[in-house]
Formats: sequence, structure tokens, C-alpha cells
Amino acid sequence: MNQTPLPDNDISYTLTPIGIVESDFPDKFGVPRQAGLAPAAKASLVLLPPFDDPLAVRGLDAFSHLWLTFVFHLGPEQTGPGHWTPLVRPPRLGGNTRIGVFTSRSPNRPNRLGLSLVALVGIDTRDGVRLALRGGDLVSGTPVLDIKPYLPWADTASDAIGGFAPERPPRLPIEISPQADVVLSGRDDHDSLRQLIIQVLAQDPRPAYRKGAEVRVYGIRLRDVDVRFRVLEQAGQTLIRVVDIVAG
Amino acid sequence: MNQTPLPDNDISYTLTPIGIVESDFPDKFGVPRQAGLAPAAKASLVLLPPFDDPLAVRGLDAFSHLWLTFVFHLGPEQTGPGHWTPLVRPPRLGGNTRIGVFTSRSPNRPNRLGLSLVALVGIDTRDGVRLALRGGDLVSGTPVLDIKPYLPWADTASDAIGGFAPERPPRLPIEISPQADVVLSGRDDHDSLRQLIIQVLAQDPRPAYRKGAEVRVYGIRLRDVDVRFRVLEQAGQTLIRVVDIVAG
Repeated sequence: MNQTPLPDNDISYTLTPIGIVESDFPDKFGVPRQAGLAPAAKASLVLLPPFDDPLAVRGLDAFSHLWLTFVFHLGPEQTGPGHWTPLVRPPRLGGNTRIGVFTSRSPNRPNRLGLSLVALVGIDTRDGVRLALRGGDLVSGTPVLDIKPYLPWADTASDAIGGFAPERPPRLPIEISPQADVVLSGRDDHDSLRQLIIQVLAQDPRPAYRKGAEVRVYGIRLRDVDVRFRVLEQAGQTLIRVVDIVAG
Repeated sequence: MNQTPLPDNDISYTLTPIGIVESDFPDKFGVPRQAGLAPAAKASLVLLPPFDDPLAVRGLDAFSHLWLTFVFHLGPEQTGPGHWTPLVRPPRLGGNTRIGVFTSRSPNRPNRLGLSLVALVGIDTRDGVRLALRGGDLVSGTPVLDIKPYLPWADTASDAIGGFAPERPPRLPIEISPQADVVLSGRDDHDSLRQLIIQVLAQDPRPAYRKGAEVRVYGIRLRDVDVRFRVLEQAGQTLIRVVDIVAG
């Protein structure tokens, strides 16, 4: 193998967002912890000038899925490449076990790059470029650095071993109170919002150190509503009950 | 959906390489046009200070595959985000058809980010961190910005439609001349180098506008050898003949 001399590590690259995400997730709390966990989640990727040229997406409608490379722009105040720790505690492991930052998909990583596989459901080029997406895990306002088509034969490792996260996380059952149900039923988007609430809450969006039933009422923002829920224990099973849905 | 006001597009992010690739591909010519096409291709990812902390890869050995986000550092002299064109001509389409840059995996794209799925075959933390990889498509010296574990359940779209590149490109048959065979047989790495040569040449690494048989002898560098080949037509079938292998 060729021995390439290592360069001084004072090289850096200046990258510019090509687009910004508008999504069902106005806040960080509640955003699914990987893409694909909430297929009902809608998002738009709005390309920014000068990247908003319809030619730049010519032929993209022949692909069903895209990779987005993005920046985890929320979080620690200081987000330079110098602000990271070698060990992180992923929620998937209960928030207590430390693993290497490169073993995780944590946002708190060198360069703060994220990667999500999303479904492409529409392309609108009437005024710039707006891609309609499903299944994302991106908070509204996320800056996107690149879009690539998903190539099934190059981007799939059929024999892969998935370490500490070998399969989808378990889902909690969701119960919707009559009061919340009335609010949902009165909305134009009642079907898709109901699906979104169920898919997001089933992941148990609480901080990893919270376990089992709690008296506390949590609130997460989805689209333009505040979804208030509690975590209950019923017949030895943890479940999430939506107690109220408040608009605005 | 939340309408996020678009920010001024004068935001930018400064990213620092976390590591550098040493691979079987000293030059750009001959590098497979996606990861996974040459499983015999070996590479090391050498982490750079301060990212070369063994803690940063703790637990990574429980994963079989990794995503590398990297920079296409070779190519046009000016590689800033401003240097791109909305349309590109991918080799896969014969080099004549223009598609959108975001419909392609072309290196000549805004921000020049690349994404490759590679197999992780070893981790050496005796002196910094060196990851042994297989199946990469990265030229030696490629700066890597991020490593993420491949999560089969989040990173696979089983029902995906792959647009203009729905499956692996076809492979040409390879013939190795007696002269080249003698050189190969005399090497310690004869088995793996032979596989590498076959896998790389089967992709027809010539520029896309070259088609069919040619008198010309091409040379590509793999590991420390120059592999010289011709493209022949035999019984109506295009094949590649390795005419010589020259060390050094």
C-alpha cells in the first residue's frame, strides 16, 4: 500500500449551505433519532441561490430516495471543529454507556455533519427549487450541504453487522385522549398529523436517562401544535398517553 | 408545515479533515466510480491529531461497515463552493447525456463532498488510530471529514428506485497476458493484486467517450505498479487485456 505522507492538519474547507430544510419539527426535542423512523414526517428542502437552478435537479425525479448531508446547526454554542469529545453516550444505550464519537451518530461530533436517507416525493421548480421529502429527522432550519441520489447497489451492505444498534428501536404503544382526539379530528391534516404523533412518540422522545412511568407532562412541538403527553405504566407495559394537543 | 424564513446565504462552515486515506489508488485514473465495485481494494484511514484518540473509535469494531464523508480534493484548481455547473455528464450515461449535478455523484459539485460505504476490517490503535478498510473508491490522500457507523435499518431503502443507475454497471471480461502473469506471480500480494486488477479493469476505467476496441495502450496505477492494458474486440465481445505490469 502506498504510504502517503500525512499533511499538516491545518487544511480546512469552507462549505456553504445549498439549501435549508423546512420540516414538521420546529424544535429539536422530539426529532426522531434517525431518518425513516417517522415516515409520516414531511419536509421541504428549499435550495438557496445560486444553487436553486432547476437544471441542478434535472432527472432527480427518477430516484425515490436521497442522501442529505447536513450540519447539526443547533446545540452547543461553540460548534467549531474543535468542540467535541472522544466519548459520547447515545440514547440508544440508555444514556449511560460511553462509546466513541465515530461509533455514534451523535450530533456532538467533529465537523458536526449529519447524514439522512429520505424519500423524495416531489420536485417543485416553479420558483427556484423545492424538494418535497418524507421520513426525515431534521429540525426546521437545518442547513444542507449536499444532495446525492441513493444508489441501492452502492449504498447497501446486505450482510452488515450493526453493532450496538442492529435493528430499529422498540416502539411504545400510544393512546390518544378523547380531548386530544377532538382537536385532531377538527384539523385538515388530521390523518397525517395523527400518524406523525404516533410515530414520533412511539420512539419515546424523552431524554435517555428518563425511564418508565412519570407524573410529569411533556410537550413536543410538531407542525404548528404542542403535543402534551405522559408516560404511564399499564399492566406492566410502558405506554404513552397524549393528554392534549394545543394549537399555536 | 412551518415556514422558516430563509437566512441570507452568507453562512458558511469551516470543516477540518479528521483523517487521510491511504489506498491502492495513487492516481485518480482507475478509481472505481462507486464504493463496493472493487471489494479487493484496500485502504487505511489514518486519523489526524487531535482526532486520533483511540477513545473516539471505542466500540467501532462491532460494526462491519462505515460511511465516510470526504472531500473530492483533486480536480479543478479552484475547488471553492462557487465552482460548479448545474449540469454534468456522468460516465454511466456514456458521457454525453447531461443531468443535474444533484442527480449525480459527480465530484464536480457544490462543496465537493463525497460519500462512500466501506467495509471495516480492522482497527489499529497502537500509534494513533488506523482503520483498515475494504471496497473503497478513494484516491490516496483523500481528506475525510466524518466517519459514521452504517445502520442497516436506517440506511437502507429496500424499495428504492435508482433512476439512471438502477444496478451495478456491467463488467468486461479480463485477460492477463503471460508476461503480466509472470510479474504478478512473483509478488507477495499476487492474489489480492490480481483480484484488484480484474475488479478495477472490469469497470472499463477509460473516459466515458471511449467505446469499443482501441489500439492505444492505457496505464493505470494500482498499489506500486503500473498496469498496462488494451481494449480488444473478440467474437463481438469487448474485453480488456492486461499486456504488462511494471513495478515502480
